[in-house]
Amino acid sequence: MRALRYENDSLRVADVGMPRAEGEALVRVSLSGICNTDLEIARGYAGFRGTLGHEFVGVVEEAEGAGVLVGRRVVGEINAGCGRCALFAAGDPRHCAARTVLGIVGRDGAHAEYLRLPASNLLVVPDEISDERAVFTEPLAAACGIMERVDVEDGARVAVVGDGKLGLLCAQALAALSGASVTLVGKHESKLGIARRRGVETLRLDQLKGSTSARAFDVVVEASGSPSGFDLALSLLRPRGTLVLKSTFHGSTAFDSARVVVDEITVVGSRCGRFAPALELLKSNRVDVESLISEERPLADGVRAMARASEGGVMKVLLRP
Amino acid sequence: MRALRYENDSLRVADVGMPRAEGEALVRVSLSGICNTDLEIARGYAGFRGTLGHEFVGVVEEAEGAGVLVGRRVVGEINAGCGRCALFAAGDPRHCAARTVLGIVGRDGAHAEYLRLPASNLLVVPDEISDERAVFTEPLAAACGIMERVDVEDGARVAVVGDGKLGLLCAQALAALSGASVTLVGKHESKLGIARRRGVETLRLDQLKGSTSARAFDVVVEASGSPSGFDLALSLLRPRGTLVLKSTFHGSTAFDSARVVVDEITVVGSRCGRFAPALELLKSNRVDVESLISEERPLADGVRAMARASEGGVMKVLLRP
Repeated sequence: MRALRYENDSLRVADVGMPRAEGEALVRVSLSGICNTDLEIARGYAGFRGTLGHEFVGVVEEAEGAGVLVGRRVVGEINAGCGRCALFAAGDPRHCAARTVLGIVGRDGAHAEYLRLPASNLLVVPDEISDERAVFTEPLAAACGIMERVDVEDGARVAVVGDGKLGLLCAQALAALSGASVTLVGKHESKLGIARRRGVETLRLDQLKGSTSARAFDVVVEASGSPSGFDLALSLLRPRGTLVLKSTFHGSTAFDSARVVVDEITVVGSRCGRFAPALELLKSNRVDVESLISEERPLADGVRAMARASEGGVMKVLLRP
Repeated sequence: MRALRYENDSLRVADVGMPRAEGEALVRVSLSGICNTDLEIARGYAGFRGTLGHEFVGVVEEAEGAGVLVGRRVVGEINAGCGRCALFAAGDPRHCAARTVLGIVGRDGAHAEYLRLPASNLLVVPDEISDERAVFTEPLAAACGIMERVDVEDGARVAVVGDGKLGLLCAQALAALSGASVTLVGKHESKLGIARRRGVETLRLDQLKGSTSARAFDVVVEASGSPSGFDLALSLLRPRGTLVLKSTFHGSTAFDSARVVVDEITVVGSRCGRFAPALELLKSNRVDVESLISEERPLADGVRAMARASEGGVMKVLLRP
């Protein structure tokens, strides 16, 4: 089968064997999405080697012990636990030390004709949700995950820094699921417009100076993917406010630690979220994900699609096997 | 009166006028303590100019509208609010944007014969607490302040990084006030011994490699005063653990932000604490502060005392007017 591989420091579409994994379900991928994490991995980040991709929708072809899934359209949680530890037993393998992560840690990913995952990771996609929307379940779940980590109070003032696809999903998820007043801070009028149409206030970076936004927010989400986003996010926070870190960028980040101590800021790292709330949001059409699709390409064209996804201004690039 | 002043980029003991402030109480200082923040200010940090010092015990000589305080031995909370804002009204001026802070922001400090503070900032010192112990109320309150910011659960594994005076106070306060198992991580056997005698486990930095402490702690308190303490503290934390930042050091700190996101760490800045719990700890003799006193010098010798306080291995240096 065909797969988009990163190995020997280079990216290529290769013909590889079908994925193997004792007892796991086999999924034929219908559509996969390129995430910034894929781009970071292809720069050598995190030491992953193998098939890239962790955002997908597909159809189950085999599912030992979970035959009811065969033929169903599914999305899949990307962390697979060790099967033994306490975290796994508690139903949350996201921090299992021995976990594998689809297309990120020790497990071939979704930019391929087929993938394997434990059947317990798969969720059936309601009929109302098209493939083009369902493929956003994983990043939308990551956005919803903010609310697993932070108690966002009714009436809270929340800012999201970064108008890329991650920032747009975070801002929309917060507006849909919390009682907060949400402001998206970004550079691009066209991207900010997507959030505005879903009830999110927006602020262009060049309007920030002289505005009343300094130290005005209770919660700020850093989703810019840029190390400089951290200090900008800090500058927007009130004393004792909460800064949510969503971006993972390679290397070390510098920040004003005295500001964190003196203003008693809380910084909260947030990675993956549960899929169920994201599927609910997609089903009820409360989040615009279609506007985030920049283009769709065949999997065979994966290398060029990755280059395209890394260009400025381009948002989600989808791959169809 | 005599005061230890930082102005025109230099430190000196000068004869200055008595402190003036409409309606505030006048306190004759009995003893003051040199804090690392004083040393940072004397390096030009934070732009403060005036009389240094914020740790003191003294006797009230005037207190308009609070005559009951006159003649009483007191310590004083160091943040003085604007008198108008919501934070002030709620009884917590620590984050009032217009606050002054004794010897740190816009208000002459305690390394002097006299100081002024609002009478509402003063707390009477119980007779059981000697001046030499009472002068530790402010830094011990800052240590207790960790528990205002973080819910430390019974049985939690807590590490404190740094065996200086701040780390020793934090470790002892956590051991006395929480049901956690507390470990102090430091370099100096003699300092670690102080904590061990109060029921704190200890770990020398050179024993850390090969120990089972990596990713073993639920809460880690960074109190080393060194930028490298941040990454060490991160390395000790379990996924979804909490890192408490106590040190304020000048300039920016670099850290592995991907680690914070992937392991969903919570970083909590913690500055000042309320005085009442600290006075209780001192009264019940549950914390050893005497062992933290390296020496006492006359205020007139303040410049040399500051130089001494900045030497390696020296802990608390006290000044007597």
